[in-house]
Amino acid sequence: MLRTFTAARQLKTVSPISSTRLFSAASAALQKFRTERDTFGDLQVPADKYWGAQTQRSLQNFDIGGVPERMPEPVIKAFGVIKKAAATVNMTYGLDEKVGKAIQQAADEVIHGKLMDHFPLVVWQTGSGTQSNMNSNEVISNRAIELLGGELGSKNPVHPNDHVNMSQSSNDTFPTAMHVAAVMEIHHRLIPALTELRDALQAKSTEFKDIIKIGRTHLQDATPLTLGQEFSGYVQQLTFGIERVESSLDRLYNLAQGGTAVGTGINTRKGFDVKVAAAIADITGLPFRTAPNKFEALAAHDAIVEAHGQLNVVAVSLMKIANDIRFLGSGPRCGLGELSLPENEPGSSIMPGKVNPTQCEAMTMVCSQVMGNNTAVSVAGSNGHFELNVFKPVLIKNLTQSVRLLADASRSFTKNCVVGIKANEDKIDKIMNESLMLVTALNSKIGYDKAAKCAKKAHAEGTTLKESALALGYVTSEEFDLWVDPKKMVYPQ
Amino acid sequence: MLRTFTAARQLKTVSPISSTRLFSAASAALQKFRTERDTFGDLQVPADKYWGAQTQRSLQNFDIGGVPERMPEPVIKAFGVIKKAAATVNMTYGLDEKVGKAIQQAADEVIHGKLMDHFPLVVWQTGSGTQSNMNSNEVISNRAIELLGGELGSKNPVHPNDHVNMSQSSNDTFPTAMHVAAVMEIHHRLIPALTELRDALQAKSTEFKDIIKIGRTHLQDATPLTLGQEFSGYVQQLTFGIERVESSLDRLYNLAQGGTAVGTGINTRKGFDVKVAAAIADITGLPFRTAPNKFEALAAHDAIVEAHGQLNVVAVSLMKIANDIRFLGSGPRCGLGELSLPENEPGSSIMPGKVNPTQCEAMTMVCSQVMGNNTAVSVAGSNGHFELNVFKPVLIKNLTQSVRLLADASRSFTKNCVVGIKANEDKIDKIMNESLMLVTALNSKIGYDKAAKCAKKAHAEGTTLKESALALGYVTSEEFDLWVDPKKMVYPQ
Amino acid sequence: MLRTFTAARQLKTVSPISSTRLFSAASAALQKFRTERDTFGDLQVPADKYWGAQTQRSLQNFDIGGVPERMPEPVIKAFGVIKKAAATVNMTYGLDEKVGKAIQQAADEVIHGKLMDHFPLVVWQTGSGTQSNMNSNEVISNRAIELLGGELGSKNPVHPNDHVNMSQSSNDTFPTAMHVAAVMEIHHRLIPALTELRDALQAKSTEFKDIIKIGRTHLQDATPLTLGQEFSGYVQQLTFGIERVESSLDRLYNLAQGGTAVGTGINTRKGFDVKVAAAIADITGLPFRTAPNKFEALAAHDAIVEAHGQLNVVAVSLMKIANDIRFLGSGPRCGLGELSLPENEPGSSIMPGKVNPTQCEAMTMVCSQVMGNNTAVSVAGSNGHFELNVFKPVLIKNLTQSVRLLADASRSFTKNCVVGIKANEDKIDKIMNESLMLVTALNSKIGYDKAAKCAKKAHAEGTTLKESALALGYVTSEEFDLWVDPKKMVYPQ
Amino acid sequence: MLRTFTAARQLKTVSPISSTRLFSAASAALQKFRTERDTFGDLQVPADKYWGAQTQRSLQNFDIGGVPERMPEPVIKAFGVIKKAAATVNMTYGLDEKVGKAIQQAADEVIHGKLMDHFPLVVWQTGSGTQSNMNSNEVISNRAIELLGGELGSKNPVHPNDHVNMSQSSNDTFPTAMHVAAVMEIHHRLIPALTELRDALQAKSTEFKDIIKIGRTHLQDATPLTLGQEFSGYVQQLTFGIERVESSLDRLYNLAQGGTAVGTGINTRKGFDVKVAAAIADITGLPFRTAPNKFEALAAHDAIVEAHGQLNVVAVSLMKIANDIRFLGSGPRCGLGELSLPENEPGSSIMPGKVNPTQCEAMTMVCSQVMGNNTAVSVAGSNGHFELNVFKPVLIKNLTQSVRLLADASRSFTKNCVVGIKANEDKIDKIMNESLMLVTALNSKIGYDKAAKCAKKAHAEGTTLKESALALGYVTSEEFDLWVDPKKMVYPQ
Repeated sequence: MLRTFTAARQLKTVSPISSTRLFSAASAALQKFRTERDTFGDLQVPADKYWGAQTQRSLQNFDIGGVPERMPEPVIKAFGVIKKAAATVNMTYGLDEKVGKAIQQAADEVIHGKLMDHFPLVVWQTGSGTQSNMNSNEVISNRAIELLGGELGSKNPVHPNDHVNMSQSSNDTFPTAMHVAAVMEIHHRLIPALTELRDALQAKSTEFKDIIKIGRTHLQDATPLTLGQEFSGYVQQLTFGIERVESSLDRLYNLAQGGTAVGTGINTRKGFDVKVAAAIADITGLPFRTAPNKFEALAAHDAIVEAHGQLNVVAVSLMKIANDIRFLGSGPRCGLGELSLPENEPGSSIMPGKVNPTQCEAMTMVCSQVMGNNTAVSVAGSNGHFELNVFKPVLIKNLTQSVRLLADASRSFTKNCVVGIKANEDKIDKIMNESLMLVTALNSKIGYDKAAKCAKKAHAEGTTLKESALALGYVTSEEFDLWVDPKKMVYPQ
Repeated sequence: MLRTFTAARQLKTVSPISSTRLFSAASAALQKFRTERDTFGDLQVPADKYWGAQTQRSLQNFDIGGVPERMPEPVIKAFGVIKKAAATVNMTYGLDEKVGKAIQQAADEVIHGKLMDHFPLVVWQTGSGTQSNMNSNEVISNRAIELLGGELGSKNPVHPNDHVNMSQSSNDTFPTAMHVAAVMEIHHRLIPALTELRDALQAKSTEFKDIIKIGRTHLQDATPLTLGQEFSGYVQQLTFGIERVESSLDRLYNLAQGGTAVGTGINTRKGFDVKVAAAIADITGLPFRTAPNKFEALAAHDAIVEAHGQLNVVAVSLMKIANDIRFLGSGPRCGLGELSLPENEPGSSIMPGKVNPTQCEAMTMVCSQVMGNNTAVSVAGSNGHFELNVFKPVLIKNLTQSVRLLADASRSFTKNCVVGIKANEDKIDKIMNESLMLVTALNSKIGYDKAAKCAKKAHAEGTTLKESALALGYVTSEEFDLWVDPKKMVYPQ
Repeated sequence: MLRTFTAARQLKTVSPISSTRLFSAASAALQKFRTERDTFGDLQVPADKYWGAQTQRSLQNFDIGGVPERMPEPVIKAFGVIKKAAATVNMTYGLDEKVGKAIQQAADEVIHGKLMDHFPLVVWQTGSGTQSNMNSNEVISNRAIELLGGELGSKNPVHPNDHVNMSQSSNDTFPTAMHVAAVMEIHHRLIPALTELRDALQAKSTEFKDIIKIGRTHLQDATPLTLGQEFSGYVQQLTFGIERVESSLDRLYNLAQGGTAVGTGINTRKGFDVKVAAAIADITGLPFRTAPNKFEALAAHDAIVEAHGQLNVVAVSLMKIANDIRFLGSGPRCGLGELSLPENEPGSSIMPGKVNPTQCEAMTMVCSQVMGNNTAVSVAGSNGHFELNVFKPVLIKNLTQSVRLLADASRSFTKNCVVGIKANEDKIDKIMNESLMLVTALNSKIGYDKAAKCAKKAHAEGTTLKESALALGYVTSEEFDLWVDPKKMVYPQ
Repeated sequence: MLRTFTAARQLKTVSPISSTRLFSAASAALQKFRTERDTFGDLQVPADKYWGAQTQRSLQNFDIGGVPERMPEPVIKAFGVIKKAAATVNMTYGLDEKVGKAIQQAADEVIHGKLMDHFPLVVWQTGSGTQSNMNSNEVISNRAIELLGGELGSKNPVHPNDHVNMSQSSNDTFPTAMHVAAVMEIHHRLIPALTELRDALQAKSTEFKDIIKIGRTHLQDATPLTLGQEFSGYVQQLTFGIERVESSLDRLYNLAQGGTAVGTGINTRKGFDVKVAAAIADITGLPFRTAPNKFEALAAHDAIVEAHGQLNVVAVSLMKIANDIRFLGSGPRCGLGELSLPENEPGSSIMPGKVNPTQCEAMTMVCSQVMGNNTAVSVAGSNGHFELNVFKPVLIKNLTQSVRLLADASRSFTKNCVVGIKANEDKIDKIMNESLMLVTALNSKIGYDKAAKCAKKAHAEGTTLKESALALGYVTSEEFDLWVDPKKMVYPQ
C-alpha cells in the first residue's frame, strides 16, 4: 500500500481544517537541534539547517499561511547576489580575505538555489524584510563557517551581522533585493516568454494574411478584414507590452544599497553605494546602478508599483487576446467556429468528446490575478511612512508572482494553443458572405441613407444584400458585384 | 557537510532563474511508472501516485507557477466530502455497496489530508476545475481499487467516471467544492480567529477603561476619551466584521450539486440534488442545502464575490486597527508613545536595541493582499459566460488564501501583540494635560468664539490653556479648574 | 445666431485646457457681495447666495475638479434631514421655538432640493466633511434669518454654530449624513430599479420557458436547456443581489449623531443620540437608530465599505447578464443570433443599417466603474486614523455615484432593452439540432467512452451525431431517436 | 427673498430622491423645438440647440446619471480638433472649400469651449462613443450651416455624416479623441501642476537642508537625517512621477484615425491617416502620429490603461507624501509636531481653535479615487472584443478625471500647504536629542551587541543614552560626545 505523508506540506491531521504550518511540533520531536543566539537570547534550531536565532524566532512569531506563502525564490537568490557583491566590495575596505571568499562561496550556493531549504520564512513577517535579510546573513555565515571548518552557531570566524551584513542594513538590502529580483525575473523570464508569444502570433498573422473574414464591432457584423490583420492587432499589443515592461526596468536598475538605516548611508563608507551596485551589475550582467536618492529608495517603492502597473497592462492585453481566441474558436457547431484550437485533453467528465479552450482559461485566470495583485501593490505602495515603507515583502511577492504567472501562462498558451491554431476557412468564408455589412462598400456609391435601406430590407426579409439592393433598384447586378467585393474592403482606397 | 537539496521545491539549478516546475524531467528519470489512459490515449504516471491520465495530462499542459500555486488544500478536502456524500446517495440509487464503501473510505482519507501528495495540479488549469475533479476521481478510484485488492489504473472495480463521478459533472462538483471549502474555512478557521482577536481587544478595552487620554481627529489634538473607549471602537469593528462574514454564509450554503453539465440536472436523478446536499450537511455538520437555482449556481459565483467582499471589509477594519496600534506605540522617545507593544525579536540589523511593531506590519501587509484579492475575485466573477463561469479555480484560490491569511494573521496578532499591549500611563497623562483641545469644555460656558481665542493665544504663545484663558479674562482660575476637567469630557452631559 | 455661453459649466476660455472652475473671477466682477465672517476674519460672499464665510473659504482653498465634483445631492438633502431632526430635539432641550421652527422650515427646503445652488462645495475638501456641514449650517441659518426677517450674515437671530449645529459636531453629523444619504438612495432608488429589472427578466424567463436551446459551457456547445431556464439564472442573480444590498442596510441604519467630536458625546446631552435618531427615522420613514458604539461610527466607515461591496457584487452580476445578452444577440448573420435586441438608434456613422447592443454597453461600462469605485472605497475606508476617518466625502461620493449609476442603468436597460428582447426561435432550433453535445444523452445508454467516440467522429467528418452513431454501430436509428431527445435533456431523470 | 432654482442641476423636486435628469419634461414644455431626422425617423430637438436627431435619441435612451456624468470637456474639445483636421485634409481630397472652411470655423468654436452647452450626452451611452461623435457632427454641421446662412436641421449645405464625418468612422474618431484629450490634459494640465509641486518641495528641501532631525523607520525612532534630506525623497518621487507620466505619452501620440470601421481603413483614402495625424499635430503643437497598427488602435486601449497606470503611481507617491506631511505636522501638543502647516480655515465646528491638515486630506482623498479609477480602467480595458473595445467613454472619463483631480489637488496642495510649511526647529531638536537610536553611531566603535545593551538599558530606565553608556562602562564621556554626533550621522563615513 503506498500510503504517503506529505513532507513538503507538513500536514497536521488533527484539525478538521487544512494546515500547512511552518513549524510542526510533531516533526520537531524527531529532530536534532543546536543552540543559536541573538540579542534576545538562546533558541533551539534544527541541527540540519543553517539558519540561526533570528530566523527561528520569526518562524515561531509569524505562523501565517504556511509553506505556500514563503518568501519567493527570486528574492532569496537576489540576497545571494547582494551578499556576494557586498563581500567583494568589503574586501577592498579591509574585510579579511578568507572570510570574504567564504561568504562569496556560500552566497554563490544561494544564487544557484542550492540552499533553498534553509529559507523557511514567510512573506508575512516584518514589513522591512529584516528577518529574511537576517535569514540570509545567518545561512551564509553558517555555511561559510562550515566551509572554513568552524562550528555552526559560533558566529566565528564569520559573523552574520559584522561580516555578512557588513556596511548594510536590512533597510537598504531588502529593497535592493526587490529590484534585483524584479529585474532578473522580468529580464530572464517574462520578456522571453512574451517575445515567444508575440512571435507565435506574428507567424499566425502571416499564415492567415489572405483569409478574408467578417469584422465584428459591438459583437455585431461589420466590414471585413483578413484574419491576418486581426492577429496583427494582437501582435501589436504584445510588441507594445514588451516595450512597456522594458520601460519600467530603467527605474528598477536603481539600487538602494548604501542608504543603510534611513537613507543617509550611516555606518557605510562614501562610495560603497556606487561600488556595490557595480559589483551587482557585474555578477548579474545587468546595468544596475546606485539610486540617485536613497531616501526615496527606502521610503517608497514606486518603481515596483510602476513595474506592476505595466504587468497590469500586459494582463489587460492578454485577457483581450485570449478572450478573442476562445470566442473565435467557440462551437464547434453552435458558436462562431472560425478557429480550431488544439485539443489537449478531454474536456468534460459528463459530456463525451467535448474539447474546451483550457489554455485560454488558464491565461484569463492569470490575468484576473495580476489585475488583483495590481491593487494589492498599489495599496501597499501607498502606505509607507517617513523613512521606510514597511510593505516590502508583500510588494515583491506580488510582483514576482505576477511575472511568473504571466511568463509561464504565456509559454503554455504559446506552446499548447497558439502554434496549433487552425483557421476554418470554409466557415469563415461562408458567414462573411452572408453578412449584410458589406453594404458599407455602397456608401460612397449610392450614399449612406440608401445603403442603410438595402441592409435593413435584407435583414427584415432574410435575403442577401444583393437581392435587396437590386429589389430597391439602387444598383445593377454588375455594379453590385463590382463594388461589393470583400477583397477591396480590407484596405483604404 | 549538510548540503541539502530541496525535494519540496524540486529545483532545477541549470537556469539562472528560479524554477519550481511541477514536472521535472530529471527526477522523472529515477521514478517508476505505470500506464494510465483516458479518451486521449495512454500516459505514463509515477507508480507511487494514485492519480491517473487526466491529472498527468494537466500536469504536462499547465506548467504554470509550480508548487506554490497548487489547488488549495481546503478544496481538495471538500472534494473528499463531496465524493463521500455522492457515494452515500448513489448507493441508495443502486451503486454497488462494495464499490460505494471503498469510495467512502478513500474519500475519508482525502478529507483527513492523508492523500495530499496525490493532488499535484495547479490552480491555473481549465477554468471549470474539471481537471481537479478528475484528479479526485482518479485518486479515489485508484485508492479504492487498492483497498479492494485491484490493480491501479485498471479502473476496475472502481471507475473514476462511472462510479466516483456518478451523477456528477465537474460543472456542478467544482462549484460545490468551492462552497464547501469556503464555508469550512470561514467557519472553522476565520470566525474563531476573529473572535479571539475581538475578545483580546475587549479585554484590553476593559483593562484601559479608566485611562483618560487625548483624542485625535485629523491627526490633530482633540477632546479626550478613555483608552478603553478607543479600544471599544476596535472591538465594535470586529464584532460587526464577524457579523458581516457570517451574513455571507447564508448564500454559500447553497450547493450546485445536482445541476450537472449546464444546470438542468441531465444525467442525474430527480432528488439527487436535495439528498447529496443533506449528505454533505451530515458529513460536515453545517447547514448546506441544494441551491434554489442551478443555472445561477454554475454560471455565476456571486456568493464567492460577496463573501470575499466581506473579507475585504474585515481587511479594511484590521488595517485601521493595526495602524492605530503601531502609531500609538510609536517611539519610544520621538513618537506618540502611548502604548508599549511586546518586544518579540531584534528589530534592526544596524540599529541596536530597536524594536518594531512587526505584528502590525504582518497584519497590514495581509490586509493589502486581501484588498488586492478582492479585485481579482471581482474581475473573475464578472467574466462568466452563458452556462458556466470558467474562473472557478482562481476564485476559490483567492477566497481561501484571504481566509487563511486573515485568520493566521489575527491569531498571530492576538498572541504576539494585543495581549501584551501595555499603556504608558505617565506619557498618556502628560500629553493630554498639555493639550489645548480641552478648551472645548469652555464652549458652552463662554461661547465658541471666545473659546477659540483662548486656544489660539495659548498656541501662539506656547502657554497652557489656563494661562491664556486667565490672561484674556474670560474665566477665573476656579471656573477653569471646575469646567475644564478631562474626566467630565468623556461622556455627554 | 444662437451663440450661447455655458452658465452651468462656467467656462474660462482663455486657457487651452478645459476648465470648470468653481469660482470665476470673470463672473465675480458682475456680482454683488455681502460680508460674512468666521473666526479667521471677513470674507466677501455673493449677495444672492445663502452661504457664509466658511463655505466661501472652502471654495477658494479647494479649487479642485469644478462643478462635476460637487458634493452629491443626496448628501446635501441628508443634511437637511439631520438639521431638521436636531432642531426638533433641541427644542425639547430649550432651543427657542421661533428659531427652531425657522431652522426646520429652511431645512425642509434643503430636503426638497430647493436650495441646491447654495451648496457649491466639492468633495475634495477637508476629509471630515466639516466644510459641507458648515455650508449647511450657514445656508440654513441665513435662510432661517431671512424667514424671520433678519439680515443675512448677521448670525442673528439664528447662529450657524450655536443654533443650527447645536449639540452636533461635523465629526458626528457628516457620518450621519453619509448613512442617511446611503440608505435613502438605496431604498428609494436602487432597490426599486433592481426589482424592476428582475421582474422584467422574470417575465422573459416565463415567456421563453418552452424554447429549448443549446447550452454553452467554456463557450463550447454543451447539453440543451430552455431559454427560460437560462434567464432564470439571471433572475436568481438579481434576487440574491437585492437580498445582498438589503442586508447591508442593517448596519447603515446605525447613526453616529450624538458622538460629537471624538465619540464621547462631549457637549451634547445624554439621550440626544437616541432622540435625534428617532427624529431622523420619523422624517424619513426608515428605521434609523443610534449607533451602538460612537467611536467606531466616527473612526471607521466599514458600513459604507460593506454596502459598496454589495454594490460591487451587483455590478459583477450585471456584467455577466449584459454580456450574455449581447453575445446571444450578436449577429445578425455572423454571430450567435439567438436573441433580437430592440433597435433604439442608428448604430454606425459609417456602416449603414448597423444596430448595436448599446444598452448592454452602457450597463457594462457602469459595472466597470462600480468595480473601480469599490477599490476607491476600500482604500479610503482603510486609511482612517485614531478617532476619525478623514476620507468621508470620497467614500459617500463613490457610494452615491455607484447607486445612481446602477439604478439608472438598470432602469434604462430594462426599458430600452430587456422588455423588447425577442427570441429567434428558428435560429435557436437550427443550431441546437446541429450540436454534437446531445451525445451526452447516450452516456447512460452506451457508456462515456463510446459516446465520446460518436461525437469525435461526427466532429472530424462534419456529419450529424446520428450518422456517426449509426456508422459506429453503437445504436439503432430508433434507439437514437428515442434516447437523443432534447426535450428530455432539460431536467433530471 | 432670493429663492432660486437650479438651472445647472435641472432638479425635479417631485421625487423624494435627488434627480439631475438630463431631459426634463417640465422644462421641455417651455421650449421651442425644430424637427431633426436620422435613419430612424423624425425627432423634436430644442430650437436653441445645435444638436440633431441622434444626439436627441441618445438623450432619451440613456437617462443615466445626469449632468455630472456628461462626456468630459477635454473629449468634446478633442472632437473639435479632429473635425477641423479632417476638414483640412478632406479639402485636399475634394471637399468643397466653402463647406470645409465653415466646418473649420465651427470646429474652432468647439475647441475653444464656446459650444459646450450643445454637448449634453453622458458617458453612459454606446461603448464606442458613436453618439458623442454624432453629437459633434451634428453640432458642427448645424453651426456651419448657420455660418453659411442655411437652415438648421436641413443638413444642407453641410451634412453631418457626408461632410463633417467625411473619411471617418466613430470607431476611429472616438479613440483618436481619447488620445488627443489625454495628451492635451497631461501635457497642459498635469505635468505643469506636478512640476510646480516638485519645485515647491525642492525649495523646502533646500530651505531645510541644515535641520537635523530624528529618522523614523517602522514608525520607530531611527538614526537622524536632515529635514532637507527627508523632503529630497519627496522631490525624487515627483521627479520620477513626471518621468513616468511623460513615458506614457509616447504610445498616446499614436492616433487611430484612418482605421475607420474595423481598422482596415475602408471608405477612407490611402494616406489619409498620415495626413490627418499631421494636421492634428499642427493644430495642437504636439507630436501626434498615425498609429502603426489600426486594428490594435480600435480594439484595445492599452495606451490609456498604461497612462492611467502611471497616474496610479503618482497617486501612490502623493498619498505617501501627504501622509508624511500631515503626520509630521500632527499636534500641536500631542503629535509629532515637527512641522507647522498653514492655517487656511477654522478646523472644527465644535473644537474652537482647531486647525487641520485639510489640504493633505483633499490630496489623499484624490489619491484614493485615482487608485479606484485605475481598477475601473483596467476592467474596462480588458473587456474589448474582436475589432472594437466598447468601453471607450468610461476609459477616457476616468483618465481625464484622474488627470484633473491630480493636477488641481497638486496645485491646491502646493499653494495652500507646501509653500507655507514651517519647520518647528526647537521641537525637532529636542526630540532628536532624546532619541536612543543615536546609539547606532557606537556600532563601529564598541560592536553591535554592546551598543544594543546601551539602548535597551536607557529605554528600560528612562535615562539618556549617554548615561546608560557610561553606566555600562563601554565609553568615556569624551568618547561619547565625540562619537555620538548627529551631524556626523547624516552621511556615510
